[in-house]
Amino acid sequence: MSRDRCHIAFRPSGHEIEIEAGAILSDAIDQVGLEFNLPCGGQGRCGRCKVVIEEGAVKRRSISRLSRTELVQDYALACQAIVQSDLTVFIPPQEVILRKLPSEKEAEKVITLPVECDWRKNPIRSFFLEIEPPSLADNATDFQRLKRGLARQHGIKGLVADLPMLKKLARTLRDADWRVTAVLDVGTWVSPDGHPRLIDLRPGDRTASSWGLAVDIGTTSNVVYLVDLLTNKVVDTASEYNAQISCGEDIISRIIYATKQKGGLDHLQRLVEQTLNGLIDGLAERKGIDPAQIDKMTVAGNTTMIQLFLGLWPESIRLEPYVPTVTHPLPVKAQELGLHINPEATVDCLPGVGAYVGADTTAGVLSSRMYQTEQLTLFLDVGTNGEIVLGNFDWLLACACSAGPAFEGSGVHSGMRATIGAIEEVWINAKTYEPTCRVIGDVPPRGICGSGMISLLAEMFITGVIDKGGKVNQSLDTPRVRIGEHGPEYVVAWAEETRRKRETTCPLEDVVITEVDIANLIRAKAAFYAGFSVLTRSVGLELAEVEQVLIGGAFGKYINVEKAIQIGLLPDMPWERFKFLGNTSALGAYTALMCPDMRQEMVDIASKMTYLELSADNTFMDEFTKALFLPHTDIASFPSVVRLLEGRAE
Amino acid sequence: MSRDRCHIAFRPSGHEIEIEAGAILSDAIDQVGLEFNLPCGGQGRCGRCKVVIEEGAVKRRSISRLSRTELVQDYALACQAIVQSDLTVFIPPQEVILRKLPSEKEAEKVITLPVECDWRKNPIRSFFLEIEPPSLADNATDFQRLKRGLARQHGIKGLVADLPMLKKLARTLRDADWRVTAVLDVGTWVSPDGHPRLIDLRPGDRTASSWGLAVDIGTTSNVVYLVDLLTNKVVDTASEYNAQISCGEDIISRIIYATKQKGGLDHLQRLVEQTLNGLIDGLAERKGIDPAQIDKMTVAGNTTMIQLFLGLWPESIRLEPYVPTVTHPLPVKAQELGLHINPEATVDCLPGVGAYVGADTTAGVLSSRMYQTEQLTLFLDVGTNGEIVLGNFDWLLACACSAGPAFEGSGVHSGMRATIGAIEEVWINAKTYEPTCRVIGDVPPRGICGSGMISLLAEMFITGVIDKGGKVNQSLDTPRVRIGEHGPEYVVAWAEETRRKRETTCPLEDVVITEVDIANLIRAKAAFYAGFSVLTRSVGLELAEVEQVLIGGAFGKYINVEKAIQIGLLPDMPWERFKFLGNTSALGAYTALMCPDMRQEMVDIASKMTYLELSADNTFMDEFTKALFLPHTDIASFPSVVRLLEGRAE
Repeated sequence: MSRDRCHIAFRPSGHEIEIEAGAILSDAIDQVGLEFNLPCGGQGRCGRCKVVIEEGAVKRRSISRLSRTELVQDYALACQAIVQSDLTVFIPPQEVILRKLPSEKEAEKVITLPVECDWRKNPIRSFFLEIEPPSLADNATDFQRLKRGLARQHGIKGLVADLPMLKKLARTLRDADWRVTAVLDVGTWVSPDGHPRLIDLRPGDRTASSWGLAVDIGTTSNVVYLVDLLTNKVVDTASEYNAQISCGEDIISRIIYATKQKGGLDHLQRLVEQTLNGLIDGLAERKGIDPAQIDKMTVAGNTTMIQLFLGLWPESIRLEPYVPTVTHPLPVKAQELGLHINPEATVDCLPGVGAYVGADTTAGVLSSRMYQTEQLTLFLDVGTNGEIVLGNFDWLLACACSAGPAFEGSGVHSGMRATIGAIEEVWINAKTYEPTCRVIGDVPPRGICGSGMISLLAEMFITGVIDKGGKVNQSLDTPRVRIGEHGPEYVVAWAEETRRKRETTCPLEDVVITEVDIANLIRAKAAFYAGFSVLTRSVGLELAEVEQVLIGGAFGKYINVEKAIQIGLLPDMPWERFKFLGNTSALGAYTALMCPDMRQEMVDIASKMTYLELSADNTFMDEFTKALFLPHTDIASFPSVVRLLEGRAE
Repeated sequence: MSRDRCHIAFRPSGHEIEIEAGAILSDAIDQVGLEFNLPCGGQGRCGRCKVVIEEGAVKRRSISRLSRTELVQDYALACQAIVQSDLTVFIPPQEVILRKLPSEKEAEKVITLPVECDWRKNPIRSFFLEIEPPSLADNATDFQRLKRGLARQHGIKGLVADLPMLKKLARTLRDADWRVTAVLDVGTWVSPDGHPRLIDLRPGDRTASSWGLAVDIGTTSNVVYLVDLLTNKVVDTASEYNAQISCGEDIISRIIYATKQKGGLDHLQRLVEQTLNGLIDGLAERKGIDPAQIDKMTVAGNTTMIQLFLGLWPESIRLEPYVPTVTHPLPVKAQELGLHINPEATVDCLPGVGAYVGADTTAGVLSSRMYQTEQLTLFLDVGTNGEIVLGNFDWLLACACSAGPAFEGSGVHSGMRATIGAIEEVWINAKTYEPTCRVIGDVPPRGICGSGMISLLAEMFITGVIDKGGKVNQSLDTPRVRIGEHGPEYVVAWAEETRRKRETTCPLEDVVITEVDIANLIRAKAAFYAGFSVLTRSVGLELAEVEQVLIGGAFGKYINVEKAIQIGLLPDMPWERFKFLGNTSALGAYTALMCPDMRQEMVDIASKMTYLELSADNTFMDEFTKALFLPHTDIASFPSVVRLLEGRAE
């Protein structure tokens, strides 16, 4: 079958060409004059040059970017396909680089409960009541009438109500002509004797809607899910940087601010309150609902974030022996925290384990279901404060490491959150060093988010823009490598390619990554790698024995495993062992919001989890230092990266 | 033995006299030249001229002012003693008219729990803890350490703590070097799951004292008992007019103010808060304690007063069918009410029955123990809003009547509270119309309190200063009867006999009672009399069948039964059927403070009590109109008064 010259027909364009057998298919496409992108410069790394070999045979030099399904459907990477016979090649429309954010409808589909549970048991209940007006013959009090109505019309026994509810009772009943909706929180742990607690009384029949919030208070990013409690749907989400960033990037600086500055704790509490209220108001406006009708909120976050949110003095979290005030806070009312929701709504801060393994981790373990599996599982919650859990249904061992905010796009020169305008993936052409970027939201790039940072760092390393120490190779023949205001840097997007928000008057600026940024990112990844290495060895295991790696965190859904391995953030193991779970902290809060049983499950998880204090572990600093290279001092533990670098050297 | 002339020797003075048999002993005393007061003018009404007949015989024309013990000890009233033989007469020092207020020590003895109960079960518990400081090997949270300390050192299981407690936990523990006193409220109904609630954490060992307050919020007067919870002693009391008086004298005017004036309800709530805080601060200062260490408060009061105290919209109490928001309020924290005590202290407003039979009445029934007796009992709570309960262990029937504040010294020209400078008893000399006054506190008179009003009204009626319609007899030959600024009046004390507080610059004024005041007092007593008459007849009984009359209220301890009968405030029955219980509302609050079981007993009492709405009863207005005379239109139902008036006519 093999001949010297092969004929290739391209569909759907109809172009044809004769080319030598053994040629690379992408060269043929280039020669025939078709517009075709090779973002990684033809190295088979980006997987963006997929074509379908409809007839004939090619030899695939690499299939690493092809799924099993794609192989069955005769896909090949054009840059890795060696022509072996006459071919008919279908060139699909290449992925649109600028993709849109998922629509709201998609968001509804995307976010679902991570565990099976009966969400209809969620504790918020609304009951419409037609109450008999009082008469001389029946002059029971307003509160007795309400209780009687609930008992007779809905079989609800017992009721407690706090002062603000009693204050509005008389007028609401009469103004509404005794036709009202009673909103109850039946969560047994929030009221004396397990009686339902009246949390609102609304005129008329208002049972058609019921809203709750699941919140993740991260050190850098705050995330709020607006949940329809009647359907269990996450109808919208919103996120924003935690306004506390202005008082310190990591939890240690925040604690110092809270305890050393006069009024510092109050100020920090106000800042996170403002951030959350902004998110809540925005969601309510978008969905056309009154925030005062949001009747429950569950909150996950690391222990420091929870203490600052509650206004609890955090100093002892920072000082040995690292003791928080509380890890299982009792329910608090929204009004005590200044939140813009129903003032009587219960705000439930979820249970954590200790000073550095907080409710975000227990929420993550719940969401990941690692506590139910037999497989040896490593759970990574990638954030400014990184939490790591190793274990299975039988045991759980946790540690924490301070990674810094770089992976959340903060504290790096052109960093930004994973929102519209953020570069979330980068390919660098190994010959020209020109980057191709995927930007969130069909707009010119404005900055680089966490996943973009990982991608960029890996590409720079693999293409030789930086060395294994993170130093920029200034001898490269490209204007993108230069000495900037902050030292050596690489230009990811030129100022003229960017566009700032209309309302800002800032001059256009190049999007760059500096050597300082790179050092920050390397420290962050090193902290993670050292964390799970030490944790794994502390129980006499090797990383290779880990059967699955579950990844949560703000950018968990968007991270590129291959590139995360290339920079040494993740251990080098087969890709199928990695699973991305998204924001497991917010998902855990969502689960606890809907399913009281699952909240109890979190208590059990927390009690089951053993905490390993890394600062007390001598091997941690050694491991950290060894991990301060790309991908690692011990390159042998990253065989796939070794192979890739060897390929590049050829 | 009887002779025409009898020899009388007086002790201890040594005077002697010969006088005719049949003479009145008081005339003999007068003739021998001894200084001796006959405040009522020798009518045998005041009982102030007691002497001891040590040898010889007298005939006692009246023994109504002498107790059995006094008779056995040979006492006689000098003005009622007819000389029958030679005599040796001991003249004791006459009662000092100006008496002192009971000292604090006496107050302790005077106020005791009205019912038997185990006061050691009061729910406030203080525990001293020496907590192990945290270490890396034992880094349980502060809250866990506290719980562990309570469990290990004191066997206390479970603990809940609200946000303000968690906020102070970290610093208090460390500042106090882990030696603290935890104050718990173990009242099962105040915390979820019946767990004790942490209400304070104090540095060091502070278990040596524990304070509570029992409060009666009257329409006119507020009373606070400061109670040592460790010894069950009422260590001090304080009372003051309710500052709400400026917005209306009775509950109806207050409700109108609360609901018609902009911000009226808030204003009234602030006023009673100010009154109570003033009393609390005063008590705390007198006893040298920090009000923030008062850890519990129970509150009795009529339903309107409780609703205004809690800030509950009271309008429907005023409008038919007279329905309050709540009669069994749930516990509230002191901070929600702006009170100057421990902000986490539970404020427990006691259970009531309905719009016009409130917690003051259930507290009164508890204090009176009428719900335990077989005797047909009438309980009267005499106040601005009068409550009346009829019944026994088997049944309880209650009604209310609006008496106005006259009996509390408010709304009458020279009225004042029963405090230093108040005239509390008056005798008018039937010949000269000159009054003799008993004044509280060894000072010149400043005004007349409620018991003084009753006494004065009766004396004026019996001596003919006023007629049965309450009109002043202007033909009397005394400068004390005159036409004043407000019409006809009687001068009880001349301006020069009075002295105002040093800090005031008011000119001296005569202490008077006007016809308008008298009309007010008559309306007040008529409302009471009509109330218990209708209540008694409503169950087919007559007043005469009542076996005991128990009287509570602000002046309950000081009222003079005889005079109260003379004006028709009380029914004319043998004096031994009357019993004065003092401030039964405050006593009930004190009982509930010390004994949680007794609080439950009040719930049972409230559920057992049937309420009779007088405004819906046709006979009430008839009875009220008939009672608008002294003592009553139907004078035949007051035989003792008939006899007295006949005596006077002689």
